[in-house]
Amino acid sequence: MPDQPHIVLIGAGNVAWHLGQQLQAEGGDVVCVYSRSAGSATALAKLLDCPASTELSEIPATADWYLLLVPDSKIGGVAEKLQAHISPNALVMHSSGATPANVLAPYFMHHGVFYPLQTFSKERVLDFNEVPLCLYTAQEGDYQRVESVAKRLVKNVYRVGDEQRAQLHLAAVFVNNFTNYLQYIGQAISQENQLPGALLQPLLKETIAKLDDLTPAEAQTGPAIRNDIPTMERHLALLKDHPQWTLLYKQLSMGIAEDLGKK
Amino acid sequence: MPDQPHIVLIGAGNVAWHLGQQLQAEGGDVVCVYSRSAGSATALAKLLDCPASTELSEIPATADWYLLLVPDSKIGGVAEKLQAHISPNALVMHSSGATPANVLAPYFMHHGVFYPLQTFSKERVLDFNEVPLCLYTAQEGDYQRVESVAKRLVKNVYRVGDEQRAQLHLAAVFVNNFTNYLQYIGQAISQENQLPGALLQPLLKETIAKLDDLTPAEAQTGPAIRNDIPTMERHLALLKDHPQWTLLYKQLSMGIAEDLGKK
Repeated sequence: MPDQPHIVLIGAGNVAWHLGQQLQAEGGDVVCVYSRSAGSATALAKLLDCPASTELSEIPATADWYLLLVPDSKIGGVAEKLQAHISPNALVMHSSGATPANVLAPYFMHHGVFYPLQTFSKERVLDFNEVPLCLYTAQEGDYQRVESVAKRLVKNVYRVGDEQRAQLHLAAVFVNNFTNYLQYIGQAISQENQLPGALLQPLLKETIAKLDDLTPAEAQTGPAIRNDIPTMERHLALLKDHPQWTLLYKQLSMGIAEDLGKK
Repeated sequence: MPDQPHIVLIGAGNVAWHLGQQLQAEGGDVVCVYSRSAGSATALAKLLDCPASTELSEIPATADWYLLLVPDSKIGGVAEKLQAHISPNALVMHSSGATPANVLAPYFMHHGVFYPLQTFSKERVLDFNEVPLCLYTAQEGDYQRVESVAKRLVKNVYRVGDEQRAQLHLAAVFVNNFTNYLQYIGQAISQENQLPGALLQPLLKETIAKLDDLTPAEAQTGPAIRNDIPTMERHLALLKDHPQWTLLYKQLSMGIAEDLGKK
């Protein structure tokens, strides 16, 4: 792969939207955006000032780098179709945290994974430079070239194999999905009691800001870590109409006591 | 209570440290800091340029407002001792989210709760103006006077009764304690797999920043909400050496599916 590679984006969703702009600015030449959805392909292609395509058979066959930015369940199917249309020397990478690299192995000798560890929404402005990029290539010779492009895109690039990436994706579920759900519960409890959900926002902000200075183990407070049983019993009584949240409260409190409690 | 009340702080911990400075700057005259610990009392009194005391019998008897900023389990005991030394007309308030106002009722006619909804550490700089203050007074006539001082301290003041405050404290456990614990798990998974915990920080920051624009229900993503069973099964296999986190993963995923999943 040359220093200024020709790049084809397969997919025009949230990841493609942010990554595509950064690639076009710093990484190389995005020469085509493919999506089954003409609207999505056209919108992103317009933003990147390049052609759009809705047919895999029509995308450039001799680009250097094909990035599969599609849902996990579509990667295999798209790869199989793509193989018929592009050069066997092309480098093809998917961007999924949860999918092994070798789903691409039957189709492309030069393959790998380009996993940006972030939650993307088209509507939000994001400093892409801060997104950690986790890279893997099946051929050792491909790694340095991908890394050198990646380092122009972001501050922090990591070499991460399949097993590590799967664990990282799992950790991200705790940090993103589950953390968000706890905010849902917190706001729901407030709203059920005629209190505005925004009341909790300063507490949430400071909870997270503290982690710039402290490890989560150092920052942990609350009834569970100090084994304050009367407070926990009052909380469980308040949760009596929410059996699911009651179980969660118990499970989280037991986890805190077990992992972080004073032995 | 006058517009510029004389205030005694009972307690010199994290809450007193931040609240005391804001009271001295905007609320009135802090005339004494009491703590059983001479070191804590002296340090805060020096910061506030007022006398320190380590004996309840020696604090000013005729101040307007006594704030009990002590651990929940100490409130009743301190109140009982305090009663012997101060004017029966004084207003006495505790600052606990989890404690009913009426623990003070046996001792003081004018009592209430002054609950700042935030996590405080002496080491951290905090914009106190952003801290929501949740107020309650047993005597209706006391409320307006406390509120008018409180509004000089912070942007947002809420009138919150015992039941609402208990629920709010419960919600705060989800938003602060449990959220922090999920970050512990995320970092622990990373570190067990030789990945730096800081890798997850940009994802956490964006997870929280998104909630400026979206409700948690709108922001929810991940395998649980889309019922992606193969991904959840892979995650559970990765957690096989962590039975506690396995239960949590299942419980949180079931909660997301039940509360937020597409029906």
